[in-house]
Amino acid sequence: MAIQELEEIVTRVVSGYLGQRPAGSEDKSSLQIPVGISNRHVHLCRRDIDILFGEGYEMQVQRDLSQKGYFAAKETLVIAGPKGAIARVRILGPLRAHTQVELLASDCPGLGIEVRYGNSGELAPGPQLTLIGPKGTVVNQEGIMIALRHIHMQTEHAKNLGLKDGDQISVKTHGERALVFSNVKIRTGEFNTELHLDMDEANACGVKNGTITTMII
Amino acid sequence: MAIQELEEIVTRVVSGYLGQRPAGSEDKSSLQIPVGISNRHVHLCRRDIDILFGEGYEMQVQRDLSQKGYFAAKETLVIAGPKGAIARVRILGPLRAHTQVELLASDCPGLGIEVRYGNSGELAPGPQLTLIGPKGTVVNQEGIMIALRHIHMQTEHAKNLGLKDGDQISVKTHGERALVFSNVKIRTGEFNTELHLDMDEANACGVKNGTITTMII
Repeated sequence: MAIQELEEIVTRVVSGYLGQRPAGSEDKSSLQIPVGISNRHVHLCRRDIDILFGEGYEMQVQRDLSQKGYFAAKETLVIAGPKGAIARVRILGPLRAHTQVELLASDCPGLGIEVRYGNSGELAPGPQLTLIGPKGTVVNQEGIMIALRHIHMQTEHAKNLGLKDGDQISVKTHGERALVFSNVKIRTGEFNTELHLDMDEANACGVKNGTITTMII
Repeated sequence: MAIQELEEIVTRVVSGYLGQRPAGSEDKSSLQIPVGISNRHVHLCRRDIDILFGEGYEMQVQRDLSQKGYFAAKETLVIAGPKGAIARVRILGPLRAHTQVELLASDCPGLGIEVRYGNSGELAPGPQLTLIGPKGTVVNQEGIMIALRHIHMQTEHAKNLGLKDGDQISVKTHGERALVFSNVKIRTGEFNTELHLDMDEANACGVKNGTITTMII
């Protein structure tokens, strides 16, 4: 038996125990990825901002987000369900084709609605929420979700890692509350590479904005 | 030498070093474990309940918890930090030797205190919180923590799995928000076997009380 063959067998056995590839078999730096954390927020379409804030209203930028062209607006809304409401929910810009409300799972019992997971941008019938702005009210039933964790990645970066849009990988966090997130969906485009978690997920593992995590591919 | 024979030899040698079986080779049923979820709560000592509720006060049982002899009391407290307060924080019984406040990481910014992880029962200097009851106020600085995830396990069950008090294992959850919790500490005793998570952790992976997860040993 060739030495190489033997080495492959031993590697396979050991990796079965450790659930990972041997140290040095990957380019470590390319697997490191910073976290971006989302609190609950709303994306609005033109029609809904006209109703909520007045015809032709333009959002004001409070601060730019890490992805180019995206921003947190100065404007906020009240969102209300059959059991309760949450005030000062931040709107993120720019405008989108469809209004979408991204909640935390921990928000749902207080609002009195069922937890429904979704991928940002995908509309599906779900629980109903009422959005209340200074000039009007909108009832939304299609874009209410707890957004599933995902990675924004530059298309070229994904290609170098052998990944494509829609693939799912795992990501390991470090520290006392370390965990491995499964089912992390890759979304490619003109993005800075970033792992998007919500505040429940970030609190569960003790990461902050910019904390470095490790992709397991 | 046959490849299979060689693989068996290597497996035996490696398992001798690591003292564990390779992933996937276990008796699945014995590795299944239900979740018990903690919200923020307080354990009180005799001295503090005397101050907060009056000399010799006895807590009333609201409901029994899954671990024998433990209960959620009808009584609640206000807990307050330098930036804010949380009302109706449940007290868990029975009384303990030392008062302990177990918070969620998501509570800390609103209270205005630093996140400090700890193992339940271990006292260490940390942030200061004020507990306010109907008869008095206590300032606590030693038992304030975000409790690290752990498994309560009957000593015999642990022994059968090759585990002992203080060992750390991983636990996998299932479903769309699946993840693997690392650093899950084993605590043996006269316990029902149960994985203890807090609400941040439970929301991050979509488990409820009683949801079955899988130990990775």
